[in-house]
Amino acid sequence: MQLSEMNTEQLTKFRDDVKAEYEGYKALGLSLNMARGKPSSEQLDLAMKMLAAVNSYDKDYKASDGTDCRNYGGLDGIVDAKNLFAPMLGVSNDELIICGNSSLNIMYDMIMRCYVFGVDGVQKPWKDIPKVKWLCPVPGYDRHFAITEQFGFEMINIPTDDNGPDMDMIERLVAEDDSIKGIWCVPMYANPTGITYSDEVVKRFAALKPAAKDFRIFWDNAYCIHHLTDTPDKLLNIFDECKKLGSEDMVYEFASTSKISFAGGGVAVMAASVKNVEYVKSLMTIQTIGYDKINQLRHAKFFGSYDGLMAQMEKHRAIIAPKFKVVLDALDAEIKPLGIGTYTKPNGGYFVSFNTLDGCAKKVVALCKEAGVVMTGAGATYPYKKDPHDSNIRIAPTLPPKEELVQAMKVFVCAVKLASAEKLLESK
Amino acid sequence: MQLSEMNTEQLTKFRDDVKAEYEGYKALGLSLNMARGKPSSEQLDLAMKMLAAVNSYDKDYKASDGTDCRNYGGLDGIVDAKNLFAPMLGVSNDELIICGNSSLNIMYDMIMRCYVFGVDGVQKPWKDIPKVKWLCPVPGYDRHFAITEQFGFEMINIPTDDNGPDMDMIERLVAEDDSIKGIWCVPMYANPTGITYSDEVVKRFAALKPAAKDFRIFWDNAYCIHHLTDTPDKLLNIFDECKKLGSEDMVYEFASTSKISFAGGGVAVMAASVKNVEYVKSLMTIQTIGYDKINQLRHAKFFGSYDGLMAQMEKHRAIIAPKFKVVLDALDAEIKPLGIGTYTKPNGGYFVSFNTLDGCAKKVVALCKEAGVVMTGAGATYPYKKDPHDSNIRIAPTLPPKEELVQAMKVFVCAVKLASAEKLLESK
Repeated sequence: MQLSEMNTEQLTKFRDDVKAEYEGYKALGLSLNMARGKPSSEQLDLAMKMLAAVNSYDKDYKASDGTDCRNYGGLDGIVDAKNLFAPMLGVSNDELIICGNSSLNIMYDMIMRCYVFGVDGVQKPWKDIPKVKWLCPVPGYDRHFAITEQFGFEMINIPTDDNGPDMDMIERLVAEDDSIKGIWCVPMYANPTGITYSDEVVKRFAALKPAAKDFRIFWDNAYCIHHLTDTPDKLLNIFDECKKLGSEDMVYEFASTSKISFAGGGVAVMAASVKNVEYVKSLMTIQTIGYDKINQLRHAKFFGSYDGLMAQMEKHRAIIAPKFKVVLDALDAEIKPLGIGTYTKPNGGYFVSFNTLDGCAKKVVALCKEAGVVMTGAGATYPYKKDPHDSNIRIAPTLPPKEELVQAMKVFVCAVKLASAEKLLESK
Repeated sequence: MQLSEMNTEQLTKFRDDVKAEYEGYKALGLSLNMARGKPSSEQLDLAMKMLAAVNSYDKDYKASDGTDCRNYGGLDGIVDAKNLFAPMLGVSNDELIICGNSSLNIMYDMIMRCYVFGVDGVQKPWKDIPKVKWLCPVPGYDRHFAITEQFGFEMINIPTDDNGPDMDMIERLVAEDDSIKGIWCVPMYANPTGITYSDEVVKRFAALKPAAKDFRIFWDNAYCIHHLTDTPDKLLNIFDECKKLGSEDMVYEFASTSKISFAGGGVAVMAASVKNVEYVKSLMTIQTIGYDKINQLRHAKFFGSYDGLMAQMEKHRAIIAPKFKVVLDALDAEIKPLGIGTYTKPNGGYFVSFNTLDGCAKKVVALCKEAGVVMTGAGATYPYKKDPHDSNIRIAPTLPPKEELVQAMKVFVCAVKLASAEKLLESK
């Protein structure tokens, strides 16, 4: 029976039962965490042998073009790292810049460059625009929104469905308002919904005709090879689509090995048109002499090739797919029949996106916290942390061991039931 | 006999002789480089065992506080890295931020933060100041000047002597002009002069009373433990001096292991007052989740302690002190008796600063290049690459093997003689 179909008496009984169950969980003194998309210790173990890939006995510190990776230089990264990541993003080596350990840092620095110096040294720097506006498909990634908030941009919510963001709305907005300078996108296994942009959506992105000549698509392809099933999603290569239309300068793409090798010690990459790469390098060369080439070489040697990267992802999948199953099984068994929540079943990525009844998300997260289960803050998936429906919660299943996850999900579904029952009782 | 004392006939004979010698060098088809302060391959070999300091068999990937260095987090660096660098800079752990591989990148990002957000979130961002001015002790480090040039600051030359920059001039300028927002300093074994700021200079820096409340001293202590003699220079701890006067918020200090471990894969640090550190972290947390903690741990484990760092520097000294001797011996033997150049004899650092007769530096560098010896570009040690006397040349002895250096210095002194003779003949 769906909770909304219960009469007051049934609902009160239901509420009292789950309340009792909830108090039981509280008494356990749990300390569990489903807040962040962090790899588990078991996943990090998968790359331990990489630590010996550049070592003292082989004296193998040279890139294949002879570059001594221990010394200064190599602004845009070593050729071996480019060879590794070019097929992953479907671009050529001269469309790549290999950086440090954080793609977030590259995105931030790109915003900074556009803000201080302009997108190409010709267009006006965004600091000189009275009000920069930014499109934010929602729900989305909190750290993206935090960057554009820090720079004072006005963020505009763009609804998303299973195909991606609302392209009608995006096309209309960028065509009519030249103060809209960019958009955050996680096009594959999106954070948090797990959806992958449809071919049509990608084509429409490539075909955008923004009023602002310096409009930029920030294409954060963080989960491009992070599949969870035998039938993975496929994402069109946006640069291929752009090149058909001559719009390739409109896109900056980002990725990293944070969830392939080490979250704290990986390698991050940026892809862009040759023109954009050359401009970025002309600014970057003042910022740094070069990123950590030894770590780039470590990655190139350990993975060997794009196939090596894909093989590594199979090992990750073996560890995390069962964790996603725990989450989805619990939701299928306990939430779906009651009609008190909707959620995605992603083919990849790091998250399950859960929607409570309107007005319940904050309450659910608070109940979880009180019972020792930390979730991503309600609202975090929206700009300014303002979820207009107070309904979206991001579930991150990867970090806790499976048995902890089972326990955490018991608490979570109980909290959803309790918050939902109380909400429905309010309106009786 | 000094060149300036020669009559036209003597000088012409001298010029013709060195010209013949020079043509001989040109015929050799040399390819030598004394341009950049890069460690030699032999120096980089000293840290090769560090590559195994964090490895797969010991499973020793945790910081001493239990942090898994492989995962996300740790914005300001791991405690073990702080323990290593705190004694090097004479600060406490909460005055330190441990970053990625490049201190230049930290300095750039600090300028960016001050420019976009202001020094403390209260003072006006520098982007909103009509004309930011910046003090540049000269000769100085070209990459410093390149940063402030990129941000469009007006750079003001400050003469230096053996004690450091002209403090009378600095005190006067910062007191009267609140658009002066900062100064670049390399206080120990300065790039390129090799001089170390005297105690009085450091005390006067700490006691500065700038008209601009957001004036900042960028204290690039890149060579703080890079001694070359048994009687190393001593630099007062600027934070100690500032704390006596309550001016510690005025200083940002920087250092790195680029010339201790690996130039391309080291660890960079920033020291500042607790107040400044907290403010920087509040902005940094939007830019990155954290820097490469595995590499920080590698450094902490390999060096073990500050004593370990100092022991490593002795090994570097054994390699590079003889190279400095080659340079200085050549100058003492060939240039000094002729009175056609002055130069420093540093107790540490990476450079010998050479001054030709006025108006000869560009010519000398061009002659060297033509004969296959690449020097740092003449003018590079001044803002906008404009050396008002066209006399300063930075000599970087560390990269070439000793026998190449001997050859390169033969070409260099020959080029100095030739350019000087021609200059003197012009005015006859």
